[in-house]
Amino acid sequence: SLMESQNEGQGKFMEFPFVTASHKKLMVDLVSTLENRFEKQLLPCKLPPDVQYYQNESGTAQASLQIRSGQSDSLVDFVLGSWIHCELPTGASLDITSLSAYLNLSTDAPNFLIEVIRSSPTMLVLILDLPPRKDLALWPDDLKTFYEDTQIDTQRQALEKIPEIQPYFSSSLYIRTVSSPTAIMVRIETEAGGGERVEEIIAKHLDPISKQVLGIWLDHCACAKRDVGEIERALLKKRDGIVRKKTLEVDLDSSFPRLFGTQVANRVLEAIKEYFDV
Amino acid sequence: SLMESQNEGQGKFMEFPFVTASHKKLMVDLVSTLENRFEKQLLPCKLPPDVQYYQNESGTAQASLQIRSGQSDSLVDFVLGSWIHCELPTGASLDITSLSAYLNLSTDAPNFLIEVIRSSPTMLVLILDLPPRKDLALWPDDLKTFYEDTQIDTQRQALEKIPEIQPYFSSSLYIRTVSSPTAIMVRIETEAGGGERVEEIIAKHLDPISKQVLGIWLDHCACAKRDVGEIERALLKKRDGIVRKKTLEVDLDSSFPRLFGTQVANRVLEAIKEYFDV
Repeated sequence: SLMESQNEGQGKFMEFPFVTASHKKLMVDLVSTLENRFEKQLLPCKLPPDVQYYQNESGTAQASLQIRSGQSDSLVDFVLGSWIHCELPTGASLDITSLSAYLNLSTDAPNFLIEVIRSSPTMLVLILDLPPRKDLALWPDDLKTFYEDTQIDTQRQALEKIPEIQPYFSSSLYIRTVSSPTAIMVRIETEAGGGERVEEIIAKHLDPISKQVLGIWLDHCACAKRDVGEIERALLKKRDGIVRKKTLEVDLDSSFPRLFGTQVANRVLEAIKEYFDV
Repeated sequence: SLMESQNEGQGKFMEFPFVTASHKKLMVDLVSTLENRFEKQLLPCKLPPDVQYYQNESGTAQASLQIRSGQSDSLVDFVLGSWIHCELPTGASLDITSLSAYLNLSTDAPNFLIEVIRSSPTMLVLILDLPPRKDLALWPDDLKTFYEDTQIDTQRQALEKIPEIQPYFSSSLYIRTVSSPTAIMVRIETEAGGGERVEEIIAKHLDPISKQVLGIWLDHCACAKRDVGEIERALLKKRDGIVRKKTLEVDLDSSFPRLFGTQVANRVLEAIKEYFDV
């Protein structure tokens, strides 16, 4: 039945079947923390089964997607979780796991985003941020409220001290533009050989730091009572719309058809776009 | 006479008497390039002599400031150049040289900024940017025009490859917020001992790269014909005003009185603030 297929999809998402133990623990804990905090504010995932789990023709690329909308009285627009696994022609594989939470137009507080990209056992990229939804240069009080008073930059500073961790610059200037001044964008590269040190860095550093950042978002952004006037709301709607459209383009438009074939890619992109329309 | 004192001030600024040869060459070349390009568009510096050159009571801190306003038909609001030299209690000295160019409300193109901070013979911080004057997340076409199509990020990428160069994160989140996605914010630190390697990096890398960035600004921003409507102009005025006020606060309000004493600091800050009012 459809219900069973949907439950399978849900199970599949939380399995994170291709990533390492510490990487899976990090993701499962973050998703659970977020879902537990919002409890009944989040509706079940209504994506069709072939969007909740999909693969390319040859089965070398597999992926899972879960989107849960917020109830009408919630500040959450929707929460999106996903993983992608691709076997590369080199014999290595690429694993991307992500969790993002988008707030709706009742609040102008920042969103939440984590993306973990593992392109080899010795290489990992982490993007962890509370992307702002306003021009912070124009609104220094919001910068203070969400980024200075929460001391969120101490999390980035802690990572900076680890010798294998280097700042990461996205090749997309738009992705850099929409990130906050405290965005954690780092590349972890260890000596060739086993990935034990990467595992250790995930468990000892990335895991607690990503939970701290999610905690700051849950405590100070996702529940913040904000006064959004009519004019501000219209601008917020316009900005949210442009940012969602552009980031989707940058993230998916070029790589998705290549990885999954045009037909599957279109099916999934169409489903996502319904949620991304503000 | 007042005229002679003013000329002394002007001479003093271009002397850069305390920095190394390659550091001085970089600054003099940038100031000259900018002034030659604008020729008669820039009015002479009208700051009083005791603001064009000033020092603290004991003479351990000295500084020079030059501000030249644009003619009424120019797109340039004003160009500000400065150097500061402080002897530190440790015996070392701190030298800051900067050049920034602010456009007026006839255009929404980015400004230009370079700041070179030398806190020891083996340590240097460079900030080199075209700070945007609009929310680029909301205006992706402007991101494309000024930052993507000009390929300005290749300059940052070139610096990234030099082993002694590390990304620099300003402790001020506001300074990070107002920088562009291609901002060059780097720290150069070499082995203890002579500063020869820093000199070499300035001459071989920072010098040509800062000239490239200034060239991009002169060719693509400072002369760009832009249509700024009434509503955009009002927002631009508000944003320019807030950004100037806040960056001045961050940069000067706390450190200036400490370095030069309250009286001198107030005199200089008052003079600068007249130009920073949009």
